[in-house]
Amino acid sequence: MSENEDRVQTLMAMFKRRGVVRPAFELYGGVAGLFDYGPVGGRILRRTQEIWLHHWLRLGNIVEINSPTVTPHQVLEASGHVGAFNDHAVQCQSCEAVERADQLLEGHVKNPDALDATQLDTALSEHSIECPSCSANDWAGSAPMNLMFPTSIGPVGTGRSAFLRPETAQGMFTNYPSIYRHFKQRLPFGAVQVGKGYRNEISPRQGMIRQREFNMAELEYFIDPEADVDLTEVARNDVPINLIPDPKGDHSEPLSSEMIPALEAGIVRHPVVGHFMLETYRLMIQLGIDPNRMRFRQHEQDEMAHYASDCWDLEIHGCYGWIECVGIAHRGCYDLEAHASASGSTELRAWREYPEPIHVDKTTWAPVQAQIGPAFRGEAKMVIEALEAIEEAPESTPFPLTLTNGNVVTIEDGMVESRRVRYTINGEWFTPHVIEPAFGIDRIIWHMMDHSFNRIEKEGESYDIMRLPEDVAPYDAVVLPLFNKDGMPGMAESLFRDICSIPGLVPTIDAFGKSIGRRYARADEIGIPWAITVDYQTIEDRTITVRSRDNQSQIRITIDDLLEQLRFRTLSDNFN
Amino acid sequence: MSENEDRVQTLMAMFKRRGVVRPAFELYGGVAGLFDYGPVGGRILRRTQEIWLHHWLRLGNIVEINSPTVTPHQVLEASGHVGAFNDHAVQCQSCEAVERADQLLEGHVKNPDALDATQLDTALSEHSIECPSCSANDWAGSAPMNLMFPTSIGPVGTGRSAFLRPETAQGMFTNYPSIYRHFKQRLPFGAVQVGKGYRNEISPRQGMIRQREFNMAELEYFIDPEADVDLTEVARNDVPINLIPDPKGDHSEPLSSEMIPALEAGIVRHPVVGHFMLETYRLMIQLGIDPNRMRFRQHEQDEMAHYASDCWDLEIHGCYGWIECVGIAHRGCYDLEAHASASGSTELRAWREYPEPIHVDKTTWAPVQAQIGPAFRGEAKMVIEALEAIEEAPESTPFPLTLTNGNVVTIEDGMVESRRVRYTINGEWFTPHVIEPAFGIDRIIWHMMDHSFNRIEKEGESYDIMRLPEDVAPYDAVVLPLFNKDGMPGMAESLFRDICSIPGLVPTIDAFGKSIGRRYARADEIGIPWAITVDYQTIEDRTITVRSRDNQSQIRITIDDLLEQLRFRTLSDNFN
Repeated sequence: MSENEDRVQTLMAMFKRRGVVRPAFELYGGVAGLFDYGPVGGRILRRTQEIWLHHWLRLGNIVEINSPTVTPHQVLEASGHVGAFNDHAVQCQSCEAVERADQLLEGHVKNPDALDATQLDTALSEHSIECPSCSANDWAGSAPMNLMFPTSIGPVGTGRSAFLRPETAQGMFTNYPSIYRHFKQRLPFGAVQVGKGYRNEISPRQGMIRQREFNMAELEYFIDPEADVDLTEVARNDVPINLIPDPKGDHSEPLSSEMIPALEAGIVRHPVVGHFMLETYRLMIQLGIDPNRMRFRQHEQDEMAHYASDCWDLEIHGCYGWIECVGIAHRGCYDLEAHASASGSTELRAWREYPEPIHVDKTTWAPVQAQIGPAFRGEAKMVIEALEAIEEAPESTPFPLTLTNGNVVTIEDGMVESRRVRYTINGEWFTPHVIEPAFGIDRIIWHMMDHSFNRIEKEGESYDIMRLPEDVAPYDAVVLPLFNKDGMPGMAESLFRDICSIPGLVPTIDAFGKSIGRRYARADEIGIPWAITVDYQTIEDRTITVRSRDNQSQIRITIDDLLEQLRFRTLSDNFN
Repeated sequence: MSENEDRVQTLMAMFKRRGVVRPAFELYGGVAGLFDYGPVGGRILRRTQEIWLHHWLRLGNIVEINSPTVTPHQVLEASGHVGAFNDHAVQCQSCEAVERADQLLEGHVKNPDALDATQLDTALSEHSIECPSCSANDWAGSAPMNLMFPTSIGPVGTGRSAFLRPETAQGMFTNYPSIYRHFKQRLPFGAVQVGKGYRNEISPRQGMIRQREFNMAELEYFIDPEADVDLTEVARNDVPINLIPDPKGDHSEPLSSEMIPALEAGIVRHPVVGHFMLETYRLMIQLGIDPNRMRFRQHEQDEMAHYASDCWDLEIHGCYGWIECVGIAHRGCYDLEAHASASGSTELRAWREYPEPIHVDKTTWAPVQAQIGPAFRGEAKMVIEALEAIEEAPESTPFPLTLTNGNVVTIEDGMVESRRVRYTINGEWFTPHVIEPAFGIDRIIWHMMDHSFNRIEKEGESYDIMRLPEDVAPYDAVVLPLFNKDGMPGMAESLFRDICSIPGLVPTIDAFGKSIGRRYARADEIGIPWAITVDYQTIEDRTITVRSRDNQSQIRITIDDLLEQLRFRTLSDNFN
C-alpha cells in the first residue's frame, strides 16, 4: 500500500470512528457513492457552507436562491443534460457487473474519457482488460448511459418525467427574470445556490471524491459582455497563484503569477474569470487549504464545452493526487439562450442603454382612415396594424401588404400618406454572458481535513492533530473538568452552559472517564481549537486553563476573561 | 372572494413581484407543488434555518447531521413508508384527471382521510362529487398510491430501487450508532437535520402549504424511558400556551396553561414532550409568529400512529385557517426497533447502568481438560466452548450438550466439576425512546410573512409593511443616496461597502431612479428594518439618517456610530 493509500485509510478510519463522514446506510450494507456527515462532520459541513456563502454575499451584488432538486425533463433537455450528461457503461457478460468503460482503461490509454463507444470497445479488447469482479475479459458493447437519477412527478402512470438536478445552476438560469428585476435591471449581478447535486455514477470509487449525491455550491454571475470590468479589487488583493495554461495555447508553460499580469498577458482570458479565480484562492485559504497545494489548470480547447470561451479548474493536491475541486467557466450566452429558445420566453435578456441615444430618420406610411375603412371593411383594423408594423417602408404606392391572417392586400395611392419620422433609440436587448464558479463542497472538505491532519510523535507515541481553522472547527471549544469530583463537574457544566449561550458558539463538554491527556487527544483529533480545563484552582479563584490545540501550550485566565474572549473570537491573541 | 383568499392572493402577488417565493419552472408552464425561493426569499429561508438550528444546538447535547435524500428501498420498507405512506387516488373516467379522493370529499363527509377505498368510492357516488376538471361524476375505483418519489441507484436495468426521503428523520435513526458513540454512550441526546423532504402529492393545492418538495427540519431526541427528567429549564421559561387536549381524553376542554401544571394534570403526557412544546413556542415567537395565533392540538388516540404515546401539533392561524406547522411526537421505541429488526443490527440500543450492581449466584460446570481431550479429540474445543456458553446449568451429570456444529454429545460424570459462581451484573441493554419535533419550514415562513404583513393607510393610499424580526429580514439595512448627484451616490456606495464588510451582515443599496419615499416603500414591503439615507448634510459632517421600518421615524447619527451599532445589533435601542 502506498503512503497515500495508507493516509486515505487512516483518515477514513478516523472519520468513521469519530463521526465525521461515513458510508451511508451501513446498517443495510451501504450504498456506493452515498455518504453521511455525522455528529462531527455535520457541523464542519454547515460552517464550510456558511463561510462559502458569506464570502460571495459580502461582494454586495450577489443573492442566494433556493430551487427544487426535482426538475422536469423539459428543463434538463433545454440545458443539454438529457442529451449529453453521459458516461459509457459496459457490462461483463460473464458476471453481469456493469462498469464505466473509460475507468477500466485508465493507465492503459491516454484520456480514455474522450473515446467514443467503438473506440472504447476496441481498446478494452486490445488491452485485454479484465473485469474487476470476476477477471473475465468478455465485455458486451459499451453504450452511453445518462447519469441523472430519473423520477416522476405526480400520480403513477400519469406522472410527468423528471430528474434530480445534476447541478444547482439551472435554478439560477430559470430564476433569471426574478433576479434581473431584483437588481433593478442593472448588470452585473450574481446568484448563488448551496445544495444537493446528483450524478448517478455507474461505479463510484474514490470515497468522498466521487459521490452519487453530493454537496455543491455554485455562483452564476451575469455580465454585459461589452461592459468594462473594474479591476480595482483584483489589483488590491492580488497575490501570485500557480497557473497551468492550456498547453496548446500561446502560453504553454506552467507559471506562478499575479492575476493582473496574467490578464495582461492574455493567459486568463476574461477579467471576471480572473477576479473569481483570485476570490476562490482566498476563500480556500480561509477554509484551511494549503496554498502550496493548489493550482489552476486551464482547460484545453477540445476539453471545454463548445460554447465556453475559458475554463479553469482549481485542483487541490492531497492523497488522491491532484483533484478538481472548483471549476470557473466563462459560459458565454449559452444557458440563457438555450432556455429562451426552448421556453419561448423573452425575459432571459437584459437591456443595454446606449451612452448617447441614436436618432434614426425613417419614412412611414400613415393610413388615411376614410379610404382604408370602406376599402377593407372587416380587415381594416388589420391593415392599419400591418402598416404600423412595416420595418422598411416602400418608396412609393401602390405596394402589397401581408396581414396577420395571411391575406395579402394592395395599398393603393391615396390610402396612405408618406411621413418622415425621427426615432430615438435608447438602447438594445441582449443576452447576458455568464461566468460560473462551481464548487464541490465535499471534495473541498476532504482536502481541508487532509491538509489539516498531522500525525506527530509525542512521548514516543503517535499523536493526531487536526489543525482546522477556528471558523470551520466542529466545536469552538471543549470544556473539561480535571477530575470527576470535588465540585469540578458542576463548575464545568455551568461554564459549558455559559458558552452555549454566546450567539453562534457551539462548545462541547468531555467529563467522562478518561485522563485529561486522553481527553485533550480526543479533542485534538477532531480539531477543537481550545480546551478549557476546570481544576482545583478554578474552585478557589474562578480561573481556568486554556490549552491551544496548535501549539499545545496553556494559559490561565479568569472565567470572565474567557467568556469575553470567546465572544469576540480573540482567544488566539494570547498565543501569538 | 373571502378576505382570506384575497390576502393569500395579495401576498402571493407580492411574493412573485419581489422575488420572495414563486412557482418553480414557470418559464416552462410551472409544476404544481414545486416552488423557488427567489433573491429575497432565499435569504429569509437561510436565516430561518440558521435560527432554527442554533435554537437547538444551544441546548448543548444536540448535534447536526446530514444524510442523503436518495434512500434505498430497504430502509424505507423498515421504517414503514413503503407500506403505509399513501393517499387514495381516484381517476375521472371522462377526462382522465387523477385526484385525491379524500380531498374531493372535504366539506361533504367528516374526516374523509380516515376512510378506506370502498368507503371513499361509496361517498363519491352518494354525494355526486363532480370532477374539478370536467364536472363529470364518473370515477374509477379509488386506490392507495404511495407518495414517495421513486428512483433507482446505479446503471439502468441493474440499478437498486430507491426513493427520495419522505422525511429527514430516517437519517438520524440510521446514524444512531455514530451519535451514541459521539455522546460517549450517555443519554439523553439529540440529532437534527435541516434539508429537503419529498411527498409526491397526487394533486397539490394551497400554495406554499402543500409542496411536493419542501424544506423541513427535524430533531430526534433519544431518551432512557426510565430516567428522570429535569424540569428546571421548563419551570424557568414557563409561560401560558393554548392547548387543545384530545377531546376523547380525560381533559377534553381547550385551555391556556403553563407547562408545569399541564404536565402535573397529565394533559401533556411526557415531560420531554412538554419541554419541546415550550421551546418550540419560544422559537416561533423569535421568528415573528404571533403568540395569539398559535395553539397546540393533541392527537386523538385513533389519529396517532399505533406506536406513539403522545403527539401535539403546533397549529398556526393564518389566511389558510389553522395549519399544522410542527408536530411533536413521542414515538416510543418504534423506529430504532424497526431498523434493528430489519437490519439485524445490535447497535441500535443503549446501555443502562444499574444504580447498584446486581449479584447473581449460579452453578456452572467447569471442564476437566484431562478427560475432555481424549474423549472428544477434534471436537474438544467445541465442547469446552459449549460448556462455557450454558445459560442454565443442569443439576447433575450426565447431561446432553449441543455443539456449534449441531452434534449432540453426552457429558459424563468426571468430565466436569460443579462450581458455584457469583456474577455481577452492572446494567442492561435497552432500546431508547424517541421524542421527535418535526418542523415544516415553508409553512412556518408562510405564517411569518402572513403575520408580519401589514397594509396601512398613508397619505390616503394603502402602504405595505412587512414587520419581520430583524434576525430573519432579507437584508439587514438598505442604503439610499437622497439624490443621484452631488457626491451622494459615491458616499452611499462607500458606506454600503463598509456595511458589507461587517461579519454576518448583508445590506442592499437602492440608488436608482425613484423618489426617496418610493424607495422607503420598496424596502418596507419586503421587511428591511433600517433605511440609511445619505443626504447633503452627510457630505458636510458624515452623519446619516436612520429610518425605522416599524415606527417610520428617523434619527441622525454619525457614520461611525451607525457602523458600531450595526455591528453590535443595537440600532433598535434608539427607537425604544
